[in-house]
Amino acid sequence: MEESLRVTFLPLGVSAAVEPGAPLLEAAQRAGVGLAADCGGSGSCGRCRVRAEAGAALSPPTLVEEQVLPPGELAAGVRLACQARVLGALTVTVPGESAVPSQRLQLSGEAGRGGFDPPTAICHPALPEASEPAPLAAWERLAAGLGALGLAEPEPPRLCLLRALGGLVRPAAGRITAGLRGDSVCWALPHGRRVLGLAVDLGSTKVAASLTDMQSGQILAEGGMMNAQIAYGEDVMSRIAASMEKESARAELGRAAVSVVNRLAAELCAAASGGQEADEALSPEQITECVIVGNTVMHHLLLGLDVAQLGLAPFAPVVREALDCTAGELGLALNPNAGVHFPPNLSGFIGSDHLAMLLASGALDGEGTTVAIDIGTNSEISLIAGGAVTTCSASSGPAFEGAHIACGMRAADGAIERVRIRAGRITWRTVGGGPAVGFCGSGLLDAVAELKREGIINRHGAFDSTCPLVRRGGNGPEVVVCPAAETRFGKDLALSRKDIGRIQLAKAAIRCGLELLSREAGVDLATVGRFIVAGAFGTYLDLESAQAIGMFPTLPFERFRQVGNAAAMGARQLLVSGRLRQTARELGRRMRHCELTSRPDFQAEFIKALWL
Amino acid sequence: MEESLRVTFLPLGVSAAVEPGAPLLEAAQRAGVGLAADCGGSGSCGRCRVRAEAGAALSPPTLVEEQVLPPGELAAGVRLACQARVLGALTVTVPGESAVPSQRLQLSGEAGRGGFDPPTAICHPALPEASEPAPLAAWERLAAGLGALGLAEPEPPRLCLLRALGGLVRPAAGRITAGLRGDSVCWALPHGRRVLGLAVDLGSTKVAASLTDMQSGQILAEGGMMNAQIAYGEDVMSRIAASMEKESARAELGRAAVSVVNRLAAELCAAASGGQEADEALSPEQITECVIVGNTVMHHLLLGLDVAQLGLAPFAPVVREALDCTAGELGLALNPNAGVHFPPNLSGFIGSDHLAMLLASGALDGEGTTVAIDIGTNSEISLIAGGAVTTCSASSGPAFEGAHIACGMRAADGAIERVRIRAGRITWRTVGGGPAVGFCGSGLLDAVAELKREGIINRHGAFDSTCPLVRRGGNGPEVVVCPAAETRFGKDLALSRKDIGRIQLAKAAIRCGLELLSREAGVDLATVGRFIVAGAFGTYLDLESAQAIGMFPTLPFERFRQVGNAAAMGARQLLVSGRLRQTARELGRRMRHCELTSRPDFQAEFIKALWL
Repeated sequence: MEESLRVTFLPLGVSAAVEPGAPLLEAAQRAGVGLAADCGGSGSCGRCRVRAEAGAALSPPTLVEEQVLPPGELAAGVRLACQARVLGALTVTVPGESAVPSQRLQLSGEAGRGGFDPPTAICHPALPEASEPAPLAAWERLAAGLGALGLAEPEPPRLCLLRALGGLVRPAAGRITAGLRGDSVCWALPHGRRVLGLAVDLGSTKVAASLTDMQSGQILAEGGMMNAQIAYGEDVMSRIAASMEKESARAELGRAAVSVVNRLAAELCAAASGGQEADEALSPEQITECVIVGNTVMHHLLLGLDVAQLGLAPFAPVVREALDCTAGELGLALNPNAGVHFPPNLSGFIGSDHLAMLLASGALDGEGTTVAIDIGTNSEISLIAGGAVTTCSASSGPAFEGAHIACGMRAADGAIERVRIRAGRITWRTVGGGPAVGFCGSGLLDAVAELKREGIINRHGAFDSTCPLVRRGGNGPEVVVCPAAETRFGKDLALSRKDIGRIQLAKAAIRCGLELLSREAGVDLATVGRFIVAGAFGTYLDLESAQAIGMFPTLPFERFRQVGNAAAMGARQLLVSGRLRQTARELGRRMRHCELTSRPDFQAEFIKALWL
Repeated sequence: MEESLRVTFLPLGVSAAVEPGAPLLEAAQRAGVGLAADCGGSGSCGRCRVRAEAGAALSPPTLVEEQVLPPGELAAGVRLACQARVLGALTVTVPGESAVPSQRLQLSGEAGRGGFDPPTAICHPALPEASEPAPLAAWERLAAGLGALGLAEPEPPRLCLLRALGGLVRPAAGRITAGLRGDSVCWALPHGRRVLGLAVDLGSTKVAASLTDMQSGQILAEGGMMNAQIAYGEDVMSRIAASMEKESARAELGRAAVSVVNRLAAELCAAASGGQEADEALSPEQITECVIVGNTVMHHLLLGLDVAQLGLAPFAPVVREALDCTAGELGLALNPNAGVHFPPNLSGFIGSDHLAMLLASGALDGEGTTVAIDIGTNSEISLIAGGAVTTCSASSGPAFEGAHIACGMRAADGAIERVRIRAGRITWRTVGGGPAVGFCGSGLLDAVAELKREGIINRHGAFDSTCPLVRRGGNGPEVVVCPAAETRFGKDLALSRKDIGRIQLAKAAIRCGLELLSREAGVDLATVGRFIVAGAFGTYLDLESAQAIGMFPTLPFERFRQVGNAAAMGARQLLVSGRLRQTARELGRRMRHCELTSRPDFQAEFIKALWL
């Protein structure tokens, strides 16, 4: 099947599809990534450098690249976007210096919407000697050192800081490195150690994190990991149930979340230390600032808060406002005095990850009406109009993650991510291009849209059994999208009426949310100027298919923006900006929560939204 | 041996000696315990009630007592102090209602020098319902409940409080009990639970604690326990050494201190629950306020602070000012949100226990010059004159605790606590009255004083070998105080030249400290109007002996006050008084530390002080 190939650009997480053989530069332009290309694509300026993984599906280096790029860089996967051609789906990383100035800050993480305005000031006080006969206490020497820098008498010390200080301070005079927030000393490190920050997007399924140099704002490493809590259930509701069943399970769930963050912190430090001398290797002990965003259940579990009320109506959280803790309190293996910031959540179902997405995606900027949606098991939708932000949570279920679909799977290698039906012939494309294993969300969406367009299913999702593609399976009529011979495990990959019903339920939840939200805000969906779609599934889904099955309203495609993991980007921006944290606090108080199911028109609207 | 018998009065911890057969009332008057005795001692008013333990060495109840006291009280050990006569050393407890008004508050623990002024206010907010469609978070419901009581919007919540709150709050409306300090919510308990406080004197050897009702100020139970850290060394220096030898030992020492406090808390709760219904039993979870005093090394180990610098010149602590922590931070098994207050320490060798002693003993009151001393392995001495407080630490060593003395022992059953030599015949008395096991501090002090008075040793501590009591032992000349036949283990209890030398070193350290301190403060010791002696050894020592060997200056006996464990009393007073905590903070800043060994006249004065 000859079709467009998707190229994803990190760290923005945005992507675009191009024909095979198109230059990477074209993919970047389509994805809205402003790569510097002063020479107009001839390769002479050498500014459009990107980094691909080893074995990425790109054309071999051209003569121009061999001339412009030092051999070490070429070997390390650096390519010129104007020269390298796309031969398969792939992911490349855009270094900050390759971006046009307007995007550089965002890309390099040097600043985000809040700018570079770290909430903790770094200083290097010189401590006087602890001389006889009346030696100063370690804390008093630190206070004297801060005084010599013209800083105020610090506030009473916290125990955890004194614990660190005791081992750091020797009787002789010397410098240390300390973090100050207002007049409060937050942390202390041996003098000259690099000061690091960690931003975490704690998803129910996947946890993404990035490591930042807190003095320059430079992003040093990024990575992701499965949430170890999956052993307790795939979705948040089953984890709440697990924690209510057994006293110990809540603590175990909390520890599982803590351990994922700890492992990511260690991995990112190791990755960012690559090629450094051992004594320059970075350690999680140097992470003195951390921001964690996530849904409200993840937030509560990590913080060790009771989740019982999140599993029962009226689904009240323990706390909604922003929290500042220390790593020590949470059991995080960072610097024990690291400040860990949790932005506010709006309700039991709308967490700080949605706020971070709103901040990072630019949804709150500009004049017109904007919709911003993050699709998951629960999909959070915000409608921004005339300065007001109204938000709802739609329980779309796990169908788009491949769950509860007979041949469903996550968007991993071998997942069918695109489906087309032309002239009665079904074609498809898999993640990685190999034999098919199952359907992931975007493939399911395409399949339903194509079956409907071809008239193989009607608006209620029922099969036209007269169509030659429809056969009778064990569970009633079904359509084989991929025959056994072309799959990895030699088994037909079919969609049944039941599978289609699950997709209908999922898309209906989202459409119903959009309709009721617009009604609540008194806005016509047709007037929405920007429609922002965030998250992994949201970035890979085909907009035409999403409109065809009625999940999204029919708006011109140019109003849509597929922004990738904007929650993780928001976490990175909050990490380095005290101002943005304040904006988030105000946003948390300003957002209005719309509880869909308590509206009298919910049921009627939901049934209507089921139609394809 | 027919001699005076010591009676100790709890909870003040003061004592006095009376002749056998004297009424308890006389002992109380000598000890300065103001018992109510409206009838002048005839027994008719029945107000001088005290409580003795079962089997205490008192005369049988008189007819007057049988008439005045209900049979149940008599059976429980209640006696009239004017009727019961002392037949042996004993300890009685004075209920608050038996004391004259000026002492009642102090005795009952209802208030101390700071009065009853708890730093945390107890309130009972009613929480509104968490109703749909936009349910309030648990924290917001608490804030609403406080607002309804006319209290300010609380400060941002601490994580540990939210952890407690989550499990406490149900969706339905209801009350809880909460502690407020300023605008900050400190802790939360189920509604109606009794709110408790714990005061701890964390000594190197013994840990004393008391449990207080924080609403009435009533003391509910008191107790003591050996410090489990003794396994790591008897004195603080050997514990510092242990903690420096092995990385893990400091943590183990900290845990040992924490576990003693935890065990005491549990025991006191159980003791105070006696006779209550199971659902009214008190639990350490209800302890929401705690004060811990102790020497600086104990303070640092319990707090998990580095003690390495406390073992090396210039012996600088990590922190001197007062600290407020939570039980959760410290690993204390109280309410995790309990506020744990550590009053300030003055130096590496002068801890908060000395400050607490100064506050509770009244050393800072009045006009004249006062000396206040706490005798231990390190003895802390303060000289208060003209509003200035000058303090030193004298390393008196463990001889008075029986250590490093061939036949030495702690003041336990069988310890020789009194020695007299009359007409060449040595008599003695043991703790408990049974066969002798060894010498405790007060017995050693007496023995040296008597040997000197009789001319058996000279002013340098050398034996007169012509004296018939002196025999040649394995380690040179010695005097057998108690022959093998009268000991528990059938072994002569003798004192050698070496033993006497140890006592000389100990008493010289104290006298040298007193002399140099008076010189530093520009005060003549002869003008000292009050000489306060605190601590167990200080309370039981014979003042005449202490003066005879030159440990204390020769002042009229009425200027001396032996006040018992005043540090523990200070901890109890600090527990219930925010004002007194402020006084302690100011005292910590005001006290001047005198480092004896850095004075040029230290050595000469010490050598002079060795003379008997």
